Amino acid sequence: MLTHPRRDWRSIARKFESLVGSAGVVWTPEELLVFECDGLTSYKQRPAIVVLPRTSEEVSAVLRYCYQQELPVVARGSGTGLSGGALPVEGCVLVVTSRMNRIVAIDYANRQITVQPGVINNWVTQAVSAAGFYYAPDPSSQSICSIGGNVAENSGGVHCLKYGVTTNHVLGLKVVLPDGEIVEMGGPVAEMPGYDLCGLFVGSEGTLGIATEITLRLLKSAEAVRVLLADFETIEQAGAAVSAIIGAGIVPGGMEIMDNLSINAVEDVVATNCYPRDAGAILLVEVDGPVIEVEQMAQAVEALCRTAGARSLRSATDAHERLLLWKGRKAAFAAMGQLSPNYYVQDGVIPRTQLQRVLARIEQLGAEHGYRVANVFHAGDGNLHPLILYDGRIAGELEKVERLGGEILKLCVQVGGSISGEHGIGAEKRCYMGEMFTPVDLETMQQVRAVFDPKNLANPTKIFPTPRTCGEAARAKAAAHFPQAERY
Amino acid sequence: MLTHPRRDWRSIARKFESLVGSAGVVWTPEELLVFECDGLTSYKQRPAIVVLPRTSEEVSAVLRYCYQQELPVVARGSGTGLSGGALPVEGCVLVVTSRMNRIVAIDYANRQITVQPGVINNWVTQAVSAAGFYYAPDPSSQSICSIGGNVAENSGGVHCLKYGVTTNHVLGLKVVLPDGEIVEMGGPVAEMPGYDLCGLFVGSEGTLGIATEITLRLLKSAEAVRVLLADFETIEQAGAAVSAIIGAGIVPGGMEIMDNLSINAVEDVVATNCYPRDAGAILLVEVDGPVIEVEQMAQAVEALCRTAGARSLRSATDAHERLLLWKGRKAAFAAMGQLSPNYYVQDGVIPRTQLQRVLARIEQLGAEHGYRVANVFHAGDGNLHPLILYDGRIAGELEKVERLGGEILKLCVQVGGSISGEHGIGAEKRCYMGEMFTPVDLETMQQVRAVFDPKNLANPTKIFPTPRTCGEAARAKAAAHFPQAERY
Repeated sequence: MLTHPRRDWRSIARKFESLVGSAGVVWTPEELLVFECDGLTSYKQRPAIVVLPRTSEEVSAVLRYCYQQELPVVARGSGTGLSGGALPVEGCVLVVTSRMNRIVAIDYANRQITVQPGVINNWVTQAVSAAGFYYAPDPSSQSICSIGGNVAENSGGVHCLKYGVTTNHVLGLKVVLPDGEIVEMGGPVAEMPGYDLCGLFVGSEGTLGIATEITLRLLKSAEAVRVLLADFETIEQAGAAVSAIIGAGIVPGGMEIMDNLSINAVEDVVATNCYPRDAGAILLVEVDGPVIEVEQMAQAVEALCRTAGARSLRSATDAHERLLLWKGRKAAFAAMGQLSPNYYVQDGVIPRTQLQRVLARIEQLGAEHGYRVANVFHAGDGNLHPLILYDGRIAGELEKVERLGGEILKLCVQVGGSISGEHGIGAEKRCYMGEMFTPVDLETMQQVRAVFDPKNLANPTKIFPTPRTCGEAARAKAAAHFPQAERY
Repeated sequence: MLTHPRRDWRSIARKFESLVGSAGVVWTPEELLVFECDGLTSYKQRPAIVVLPRTSEEVSAVLRYCYQQELPVVARGSGTGLSGGALPVEGCVLVVTSRMNRIVAIDYANRQITVQPGVINNWVTQAVSAAGFYYAPDPSSQSICSIGGNVAENSGGVHCLKYGVTTNHVLGLKVVLPDGEIVEMGGPVAEMPGYDLCGLFVGSEGTLGIATEITLRLLKSAEAVRVLLADFETIEQAGAAVSAIIGAGIVPGGMEIMDNLSINAVEDVVATNCYPRDAGAILLVEVDGPVIEVEQMAQAVEALCRTAGARSLRSATDAHERLLLWKGRKAAFAAMGQLSPNYYVQDGVIPRTQLQRVLARIEQLGAEHGYRVANVFHAGDGNLHPLILYDGRIAGELEKVERLGGEILKLCVQVGGSISGEHGIGAEKRCYMGEMFTPVDLETMQQVRAVFDPKNLANPTKIFPTPRTCGEAARAKAAAHFPQAERY
């Protein structure tokens, strides 16, 4: 039997069917297969049962029952997370929010929208764009990732340089606590007294409860948007251009660097014919705002790029051309498949001023470990995404690549940065939390967690390091219990 | 004896002298007098002893000793808070941060500054303005209030419409927990994994510990700033102008409304000769940004004000003229002394769309209770500051005025707003927390507090409601213990 031997899963399934209807319960082994991993596909664990509630009240009933029965609960949105935040744990109930996909209310006058957690990121902007509004945080997966997942992981995106990450856009939450209690956090106005539990919840990766209604801030669509593509002989020059732009007091909507390896991968696959294959790096800068300001900013950015050594500049104002310039960047991760059977993406943050030093060191580390590392990153806020290329068919390669990834993360911390920019800690990076936080810091967080989750049932084993080294141990354990579970 | 009878304050004072030096301990009754209230002068309580540490280590040593001895601790910056957050509690150690007034580090490249908590708000901008930077949150008391106090109360200001409140500008904190342990929260880069304890701490009003180093975000000074003064026959017209400006997608740096009563009080006292005495209301709008954008925004704001019915418009671009237009607004609270022996200022927030309805109802409530209410407020974000005029020399008046204030706060909550915009809950508004939060919400917050402050020693009795009605009970208790304590 696949699941926890001491549980009577048949009667548990019946109970859940009585709470959410029979269409909302999944527990045959074949059906459970698709839920055994999220975007971090190298980790797998089949859940014992999947429940798909439709309302806050149903989530409450499910969690209340799990609390009584001491069943661990893992929440999952679209399952696109890259750190294993929605990876099931052994014998768990996986609460999937895909049926909670309603837009509850739109209030243009106060610029906010309330949605259920299963609503897809893109749907929010689509729902309000005709009225001239949009929702700012835009992870690359925005066409499939859910708002609930964005809240859990505090997701970012290309535009978080100017507009901030998810936590800057969540005004209020309805949350079901692990014992089934429903609470409200934050609210319709920005200023709320008492502790900022809403801010505490965003980014807590499912360890404090499940958000069932989320009130988001809407922004007015910019009057004008322009995208500039500058190409440079070296990545250092591109980095210098970024520093010069920020130093001049310009805050672009987004500012992305891709290195030569990434450029060529992208041109091989999507053939934008915009990215020069011989460039050491390209810099994409998007400026937005009132027409007149965009014009002025674009001119200033062009001048600063030229001074930094740009060989050529290309500018796009209409939507079609802008999309073309962004196309390669958006396809960058997928294109890596052309270069290598597998890639391992890291997500670290460094102070902007350390960019050149850290990129040089990453190249050096890659060479030392014997791997090519492609760099595609949010340059404006120092959020790196090194992509380590490897062949997962060779035994032991993943472990070696994870060690290199770990070295890169430690480097980020050493220069005053962070081990996670926008992908969360999840199952993958727990073992590095000790690099950033003291035992007292971590103990304080765990005690806060215990307030919300006294029985340690909400996404247990995530975020916080255990005495074990995490990556290997988690997989080893999964493999021992589920011999059929593969790693790819 | 004034202080707790069972404590040997002489030996406690000696102990503190050994920890922070004899110049850092104050405990004679005469010296303690100045610490018996903060900006909420109607509440008084003398502390048992005042300690003035200079470093994180000294704060840690003081708190560790208090924890061992189970002495309640209240932290105080400049004592300008308006909700009694720094009001001492009976038999407490008051930790005053005024000797912790060093700027620790400035990092222009990464746009941040680290300061001790006793640094005055204005000093931050003064320290970095030559390099073209400033610190955005600007409470009216900015020339005397401390950054530590701003963090505790999550202070706002005129510019928080565009730039956010204190929590949006605090990147990292060094905090001494109530047991003396030193922890770091947040950090030098914006994205940090784990729970956002830094966000939790900001606005916790001294109940989770004492911040001893604070890393703030610096903003680039705007290229241009313009202030517009529009006068209207009615406050409804001014409100309509605010809605039109926001509706047009313009986000001014600040947007303030003053009503006829406030205008006349100000002209009586500071004689700006800019504010028309017969106006129903004036609207002050500050726009900032690149020269060309400011020009465009100013034109748009002027046109929208005229459409809303503005009788006249005045615009100021140079610093001297801008200061003149702001002068009356900044002096508004002080000027109320001309109209009435006392005033009671409230701080509530409403959704912007409820402005007209709520202002009408406040006028009605004032009439029903028999008090004049002047309105001066941050119109852009719906943060009201009704000033209730009364004569505190008449017995029972303060209590009646507090009841009216309470009605106004309940009104704010009824329309979907908040009982506190930027002044905190402190000692004054605890009894209204139940209007905004359910018992479960409040219990959750108190449990979070217990993680940081298990012995309930850090600013006890603040924020959270007690079974007693708070205002009267707190004062009654203070009066019983300190017959000489006066209320004014």
